[in-house]
Amino acid sequence: SKILVLPGDGIGPEIVAEAVKVLEAAQQKFGLEIELDQALVGGAAVDAENDPLPESTLTKARAADAILFGSIGGPKWDAIERDKRPERGLLRLRSALGLFANLRPAILFPQLADASSLKPEVVSGLDILIVRELTGGIYFGQPRGIKEENGERVGFNTYVYTESEMRRIARVAFELAMQRDKRVLSVDKANVLEVTELWKEVVTEEAKAYPEIELSHMYVDNAAMQLVRAPKQFDVIVTGNLFGDILSDEAAMLTGSIGMLPSASLDENRKGLYEPCHGSAPDIAGQGIANPLATIMSLAMLMRYSLQRGDVADAIEKAVEAVLDQGLRTADIYTEGTRKVGTEEMGSAVARALA
Amino acid sequence: SKILVLPGDGIGPEIVAEAVKVLEAAQQKFGLEIELDQALVGGAAVDAENDPLPESTLTKARAADAILFGSIGGPKWDAIERDKRPERGLLRLRSALGLFANLRPAILFPQLADASSLKPEVVSGLDILIVRELTGGIYFGQPRGIKEENGERVGFNTYVYTESEMRRIARVAFELAMQRDKRVLSVDKANVLEVTELWKEVVTEEAKAYPEIELSHMYVDNAAMQLVRAPKQFDVIVTGNLFGDILSDEAAMLTGSIGMLPSASLDENRKGLYEPCHGSAPDIAGQGIANPLATIMSLAMLMRYSLQRGDVADAIEKAVEAVLDQGLRTADIYTEGTRKVGTEEMGSAVARALA
Ligand SMILES: CC(C)[C@H](C(=O)O)[C@@H](O)C(=O)O
Ligand SMILES: CC(C)[C@H](C(=O)O)[C@@H](O)C(=O)O
Repeated sequence: SKILVLPGDGIGPEIVAEAVKVLEAAQQKFGLEIELDQALVGGAAVDAENDPLPESTLTKARAADAILFGSIGGPKWDAIERDKRPERGLLRLRSALGLFANLRPAILFPQLADASSLKPEVVSGLDILIVRELTGGIYFGQPRGIKEENGERVGFNTYVYTESEMRRIARVAFELAMQRDKRVLSVDKANVLEVTELWKEVVTEEAKAYPEIELSHMYVDNAAMQLVRAPKQFDVIVTGNLFGDILSDEAAMLTGSIGMLPSASLDENRKGLYEPCHGSAPDIAGQGIANPLATIMSLAMLMRYSLQRGDVADAIEKAVEAVLDQGLRTADIYTEGTRKVGTEEMGSAVARALA
Repeated sequence: SKILVLPGDGIGPEIVAEAVKVLEAAQQKFGLEIELDQALVGGAAVDAENDPLPESTLTKARAADAILFGSIGGPKWDAIERDKRPERGLLRLRSALGLFANLRPAILFPQLADASSLKPEVVSGLDILIVRELTGGIYFGQPRGIKEENGERVGFNTYVYTESEMRRIARVAFELAMQRDKRVLSVDKANVLEVTELWKEVVTEEAKAYPEIELSHMYVDNAAMQLVRAPKQFDVIVTGNLFGDILSDEAAMLTGSIGMLPSASLDENRKGLYEPCHGSAPDIAGQGIANPLATIMSLAMLMRYSLQRGDVADAIEKAVEAVLDQGLRTADIYTEGTRKVGTEEMGSAVARALA
């Protein structure tokens, strides 16, 4: 299989290097035939080629079976014109590859339970999977822009979904829930927004093909509340691009260890882009202290979904758990009584535990 | 002054009755000249006049100096046509009266600290004020609807703000922050949505008139995270209608006592509508167990903002604290060692403490 590595900006290169270390260990152990390639994306690509997603990178991305992505952005590129911003590179990549299904698990690692700002009894054992639509909705809706009207500026965006876009993301959520607790919550704001009124209707129709699934609905404001109040009530949550952005970050933070959480963005054929939930953390870039575990867990998702190697995924996840059990912690998850290590040492420890 | 009471649906009538009891006690004690009127809104108005905001109600609302609102909605009206739904009555009322500034405090009552799902050290002393734009944005943007295109349904809404809409809500936030800790966070998704890119720009421009204010910016996904991680970092948060809906509910739930939190929706001249943050709770309606304190606290905000009687507001808030100190609790905030009381007993206790 072909894997394209896109390190990106900030801590991206450092954490991706550790995930590649683990990938090489997995290759050895399981005899995987993997062809690795690498390319520029985000601010690094703007600096080199004046484009956050150069044509050469997109070509390589199209040819790959899966993409391992670091992180992008930073203050250096904040002031440049809209189309050249690092984020636009990622958005264009998601769209060009049709990566419509964004899977964001929010899992509490028992070893890190203390790191949560929530009471232990509220979050212990937390295991939510957020399924976010990633190539439609208000992120990509037209018309959009800033215009002049009646002598003043007016900003506008369009929140739009077609029925088929809604159906296919609903199906992904139902399929994934069938392998879990068979409960799906669809999040909308159907009492105000017509687009989500249709969303609710279509998801309900689509659920008929999954009689074993228990489907429920919640307004987005209530979902934001319930995630704080009693997050363990949820199994799979399916929602649109913007609500998914907000709720998945909120859910990730419930675990207290955003440095641990991976994500997968899949197309119709399970080709995917895998990236940590956290950002590029420019403030600590280059210091060798970033936590590579979210990227390593993203590699596990890559094995599971795009390479169909659940066994390798399980082994990587077990290796991460083993290293946590040994007491190794990067600075972001450090607590007294554990051993603080840097990015490289953490990556090497996981690679060793895997081998 | 003229106060219009709109009890609404579900627990609305019960909790509003208790706030009126407190209002009458305040009237006596402070010699206030208040003319009280009452009207139908929401489901109750649909049942009686087939319209969630009858013309007669709107006329009375226009004539009033302030409105005390209960809550609306319930399963009974879920299936009726869009324009007749209870929520539409509230949205039309906000819009018709120009109530563009929605103030939602998220305060932790020390007496109820245990009720939060967050660790005590994370939330103790929490005091955030969310300023939400309430008559614009995607809630009211045109075009909107569900259409047929290429043989399938398409849902769409428009997220739109004019510069002047942004300026006036920013000013409200800055003015309020001047009376607090002088820190304002503006929440946007400027890396993706042009409308919020303009929002960020305009808020920044408007801040120049308030040199003492410390203005910062955050993406909405990060704000949803930071509210969970370290909510005490915030003073005033200003944002648009939809983000404000989501974040204010999330923030309210951090306190663990959503049954306690009031809100104010103000026009340019400080005429306002005051309502509890919680909903109509149809499951417990008519049982006499609902918590009237959020509505009573909303009455305090009414005194402070629309009647310019900060002294009366303070007295009402002190009366609520006194009753909590006495150990009285409705079911939703009950914990062992306190005394469980019903809606009426709670309202009477506050009225007595005030007198
Ligand atoms: C960087 C940004 C465009 C992106 C998004 O909003 O989708 C990020 O927040 C994410 O969630 O992956
Ligand atoms: C009832 C609903 C329309 C309303 C809103 O979304 O504004 C409510 O959630 C609120 O926040 O006051």
